[in-house]
Amino acid sequence: MAEKPKKPSKLKARLPRGLEDRGPAAIKATLQMVEKIRAVYERYGFEPVETPAFEYTDALGKFLPDQDRPNEGVFSFQDDDEQWISLRYDLTAPLARYVAENFETLAKPYRSYRFGWVFRNEKPGPGRFRQFMQFDADTVGAPTPAADAEMCMMAADTMEALGIPRGSYVVKVNNRKVLDGVRDALGINDDGQWLTVMRAIDKLDRLGVDGVKQLLGEGRKDESGDFTKGAGLKPADIALVIGSIAPGSALDSRLRESKIGQEGRAELDEIGRVAGASGYGEDRIKIDPSVVRGLEYYTGPVFEVELLLETKDEKGRPVRFGSVGGGGRYDGLVSRFRGEPVPATGFSIGVSRLQAALTMLGQLDTRPETGPVVVTVFGGDIADYQKMVAALRAANIRAELYLGNPKHSLGQQMKYADRRNSPCAIVQGSDEKARGKVQIKDLILGAGLTEIKDREDYLKRQGEAQTEVDQGELVEAVRKILARHDVKWQI
Amino acid sequence: MAEKPKKPSKLKARLPRGLEDRGPAAIKATLQMVEKIRAVYERYGFEPVETPAFEYTDALGKFLPDQDRPNEGVFSFQDDDEQWISLRYDLTAPLARYVAENFETLAKPYRSYRFGWVFRNEKPGPGRFRQFMQFDADTVGAPTPAADAEMCMMAADTMEALGIPRGSYVVKVNNRKVLDGVRDALGINDDGQWLTVMRAIDKLDRLGVDGVKQLLGEGRKDESGDFTKGAGLKPADIALVIGSIAPGSALDSRLRESKIGQEGRAELDEIGRVAGASGYGEDRIKIDPSVVRGLEYYTGPVFEVELLLETKDEKGRPVRFGSVGGGGRYDGLVSRFRGEPVPATGFSIGVSRLQAALTMLGQLDTRPETGPVVVTVFGGDIADYQKMVAALRAANIRAELYLGNPKHSLGQQMKYADRRNSPCAIVQGSDEKARGKVQIKDLILGAGLTEIKDREDYLKRQGEAQTEVDQGELVEAVRKILARHDVKWQI
Repeated sequence: MAEKPKKPSKLKARLPRGLEDRGPAAIKATLQMVEKIRAVYERYGFEPVETPAFEYTDALGKFLPDQDRPNEGVFSFQDDDEQWISLRYDLTAPLARYVAENFETLAKPYRSYRFGWVFRNEKPGPGRFRQFMQFDADTVGAPTPAADAEMCMMAADTMEALGIPRGSYVVKVNNRKVLDGVRDALGINDDGQWLTVMRAIDKLDRLGVDGVKQLLGEGRKDESGDFTKGAGLKPADIALVIGSIAPGSALDSRLRESKIGQEGRAELDEIGRVAGASGYGEDRIKIDPSVVRGLEYYTGPVFEVELLLETKDEKGRPVRFGSVGGGGRYDGLVSRFRGEPVPATGFSIGVSRLQAALTMLGQLDTRPETGPVVVTVFGGDIADYQKMVAALRAANIRAELYLGNPKHSLGQQMKYADRRNSPCAIVQGSDEKARGKVQIKDLILGAGLTEIKDREDYLKRQGEAQTEVDQGELVEAVRKILARHDVKWQI
Repeated sequence: MAEKPKKPSKLKARLPRGLEDRGPAAIKATLQMVEKIRAVYERYGFEPVETPAFEYTDALGKFLPDQDRPNEGVFSFQDDDEQWISLRYDLTAPLARYVAENFETLAKPYRSYRFGWVFRNEKPGPGRFRQFMQFDADTVGAPTPAADAEMCMMAADTMEALGIPRGSYVVKVNNRKVLDGVRDALGINDDGQWLTVMRAIDKLDRLGVDGVKQLLGEGRKDESGDFTKGAGLKPADIALVIGSIAPGSALDSRLRESKIGQEGRAELDEIGRVAGASGYGEDRIKIDPSVVRGLEYYTGPVFEVELLLETKDEKGRPVRFGSVGGGGRYDGLVSRFRGEPVPATGFSIGVSRLQAALTMLGQLDTRPETGPVVVTVFGGDIADYQKMVAALRAANIRAELYLGNPKHSLGQQMKYADRRNSPCAIVQGSDEKARGKVQIKDLILGAGLTEIKDREDYLKRQGEAQTEVDQGELVEAVRKILARHDVKWQI
């Protein structure tokens, strides 16, 4: 006996994990943010450039060429010609490719900005998505600390343009060369040990000096009892590290002697001096020797833009937003393609992350917009109703015809208008049609009726909430209602 | 003997084929187009929604679930959990997934729009990219031809909002049901044969009635001598097809009897009637029975937005742009997830394609924007020059410090300012510094000097092109030069 054919199972509609759909309020907020950032960058003389969403994997440069499936951290696939292609995981690597490919035709220093989606094949978590938006600025062909200072000043101006008041953010600056000086002075050859030291430094904010000291030494047991093995430094070496990062600590003489460390400190001084001369004080741009940025390619100054604002989580505990952007000098990234040094510096704002922070802080307008005027369908010819809609639209009034089943009751259609947040609805039955009239229901006034206690007031408002006008006066009458409630659309 | 270590080969900076980088003029043009389209859609009551760049391959719905590597036409890769994921190839399939996933919370009919990049893993060609931008509008939950008519009216309004004059575009409308009626009347069971018939119909524009007749019959030999095998229809059947698509031909009685064909024609009549009543005549929205759209999912009316404008190719031959958008009714797309019919209609504008057309037609502003004011570095302290730049920026003047090697000669720096299309450059040497002065070079006036024949005029203009002012008056003096040349930046 033949098997019964399987009934095709209904497809499940679901987003892949770590991704999100976005509605009108979020989209509008992003547009506004992007527009404000763009204005600052343009003022600084930067010009836009756009690269596609994917690149040859080797050009992105995060992976060894002999790796068979370079999929860790990025989304990769093989092209028809067997070459590996990856979705961009940031906007810096594609810029380096772009600059190298167009090196001869670009006026240098080349200041550019770009924004767009980037993709990380990482484990998603709360607020951590696999697709998110970045907004980057870079200057290629600029060797001096003045270029780094400009980046920091621009980051500070951008924060303020986004409505974050002075004192509620800080651009922290450190220098990889200073950290290299520390390594130099410690004489550490083992990369793994050095990574442990950097990770310990990175935790100064969270654990304080004592916690970092433990992580630099034997290790540290946290509140839950978990033990993290330390870098195993001797007490004198621990003192050297702490002296290099903790404010007010004495600088070890070994550190003072490191040439690379001296160079790094001189660059930091120059950044602080140039920014300071233009009025960007330590409240905005702050030299902070504890800033560690993990990306391999930074070769000099590194920046971190931090929000100092706090909010409360659902349990009432204070939450600090922390980093919403960062960057630094990456003299090696373009030169991979050129075989000659190409100095470059830039920074990146995490738009999605910053938007989440601003939303939580109530700094973004997330109210639903007023919906369109709804023309209901009530027995007559749909072409006549459509004509009314066309007349409203021609007058630049946001309007729509009820396009659900035309047999739906007026009640169902009014419920739709309510859900659409419509300011008013238009009704014309055969009776009104015969008299050349239309009914206009002011839905904002109407919604407020239930709260009115006084009878006379109620009747008066009820009268205002539903009016009848000549069909020829429809546009004018709707305009009056929109003016009454100060409805303005961005059209 | 050990082999010599290979010298690492220098990486080649190159874009994967079929992709493009975009500069300031193209980016600006896209922004302006998107903004104009958005305004029309908003006026029609549509609201924005955004879905991510990739989806589960099965949710996109172009592929059989048992296919091992569903890579044809789309870019696909396997997620950590072995599920196939694909970059979106259009904006309709992701919308269907979104609507199905949020069906209960959306007010229906649900009018929405979205724009963004889509990706096709196809052979690239001139003007055919593997990443391009679409701008879509859809109404879900609207069963009547009035909803299709609205789509066509909105498409027409959009073309005019983009500066395409009436008469230079047309929205052509046909109905899959009419085509199904033709198949019905012909009694064709073979899908392959029917596809050949549809392909023949699709060529009416290019080959005319005689060419289509040949393709419906035995076949056709083109100018180059290549032979295309035809559908093998009998003469009476060929006459039936021609009668169904060519203007002025007699409608076959078999066609008139097809129930599905009758339904299709009635819907087309209703679309024409509703649009016509709102003032959208045949010059804008035209019923055209020869329109065939290939996508499998259309179930009723189909639309095609066509540019009627012509341009010349590099050999002086006329080029017609043809289709820049299209759409139709797809009642089955959402129901795949729901197991119940969900009527929907929508259309999509090919923004990249339309932008290419408008650019070729000279309808988009592609002039390079005026660059920033450049403050040159001439021996003094960089912090002082940076201060001037900061003052200009604070006055909302687009300005930048020369950030190349500070030892570059003034000539090199002025050349840079020229390449940046700067309106003016600022110079301060030690002599000016000591006197508290700055030099301002008007580069627009300066560029025009060579064309002046009259000596006195030349000297006067030369004087104007380079002025010295007190440092405290720098901002005011630059403002005057910007006003002289009517420089306005979008900042």
